[in-house]
Amino acid sequence: MKIAVLGTGSVGRIIAARLAELGHTVAMGTRDPQATLARTTADAMGNPPFAGWAHENQDISVASFADAAEGAEFVINATNGAASLEVLGQAGAENLAGKVILDIANPLDFSNGMPPTLFVKDTDSLGEQIQRAFPEARVVKSLNTLNAGLMARPATLADPGTVFVSGDDSDAKNTVAGLLKDFGHQDVIDLGDITTARGTEMLLPVWLRLWGALGTPEFNFKIVR
Amino acid sequence: MKIAVLGTGSVGRIIAARLAELGHTVAMGTRDPQATLARTTADAMGNPPFAGWAHENQDISVASFADAAEGAEFVINATNGAASLEVLGQAGAENLAGKVILDIANPLDFSNGMPPTLFVKDTDSLGEQIQRAFPEARVVKSLNTLNAGLMARPATLADPGTVFVSGDDSDAKNTVAGLLKDFGHQDVIDLGDITTARGTEMLLPVWLRLWGALGTPEFNFKIVR
Repeated sequence: MKIAVLGTGSVGRIIAARLAELGHTVAMGTRDPQATLARTTADAMGNPPFAGWAHENQDISVASFADAAEGAEFVINATNGAASLEVLGQAGAENLAGKVILDIANPLDFSNGMPPTLFVKDTDSLGEQIQRAFPEARVVKSLNTLNAGLMARPATLADPGTVFVSGDDSDAKNTVAGLLKDFGHQDVIDLGDITTARGTEMLLPVWLRLWGALGTPEFNFKIVR
Repeated sequence: MKIAVLGTGSVGRIIAARLAELGHTVAMGTRDPQATLARTTADAMGNPPFAGWAHENQDISVASFADAAEGAEFVINATNGAASLEVLGQAGAENLAGKVILDIANPLDFSNGMPPTLFVKDTDSLGEQIQRAFPEARVVKSLNTLNAGLMARPATLADPGTVFVSGDDSDAKNTVAGLLKDFGHQDVIDLGDITTARGTEMLLPVWLRLWGALGTPEFNFKIVR
């Protein structure tokens, strides 16, 4: 597939590289490609400059959010949650219409210190906000419940655990589930419509505490039944 | 141990019976023991009248919240979350001081229909509210992430999964963890202080959606790592 990955942080990089490895044609979307490639210092999250990564991944193109989305059949939102609606707006509703948006972002609010809280929860979710803002897109929430390395390579764990999909469009969820299985995910649970994203986004608070308690982000939730 | 189980609903009944089976001396606390025993119809949650259950469990005594707590070394809050603070107030701060309160309740708000939302979340939790209201008690949040049958008999599942403890007092958490292991729980993760109850209480929304998606409440979270 022709896939646009919006966001050049660690999640975007890891997902994009894995997709390219699996044979997909991948474009990374960023606000200003020239500025992103010219940056020589780590970004706000501590990721090394993008240019070095891009040099090692020359099969992955770099474009504006709009150009990346326009050329893609499938769009992945790998931006941080607070920026997601604005970034998707830059990608352009016309470039998202009819396409699957795999939404990986979480509505984390760092303004009150650590651990972050959620800026939307319980009676709404970021997944729903995106679906409402882009009603012609087919939003599927998934992969927001584990760290980037395990999203892309779950078999790093002896038991990879479970991932979830939430969305209103069954075909879109099937497309995402197929991609998840290509990544190595064996247990994909369809939770239901996009409102069920409230459930998986609200997993983040316990995920964050587990990271603290276990001393590593290399774990996943598994639903035993 | 001498244990008081506050609440005569399905969670209280299942936990009390399991504790008695394990050799503990159990008192069920209820608002008005005579009224509870005189009831001949199902309660608001559809549980059959308590008297029949009490007749089959004559080794378990029934007392007021205050009398049950006063006579116990260890207190379990198995009331519904919306009633918990008021019930613990009836049990009496003086009867809870110095004792472990194992808080199983979730802050579910059914006032907006199904699925319920949480009446406290993210920046506070029911576990913390209880600890603040009864500062001399030693509150441990646990078992609120799975259904009552599996709380008491996790080995019903081929893989029982994980349970969590949150609390400010290490000795209290160790006491609870010992009880959990007696129930059959093999993987108990100490998340940290009582604020980490925010994480496990916020698991409820995805638990409720999983119940819907799987068609059964007979499942648990396991942390694979």
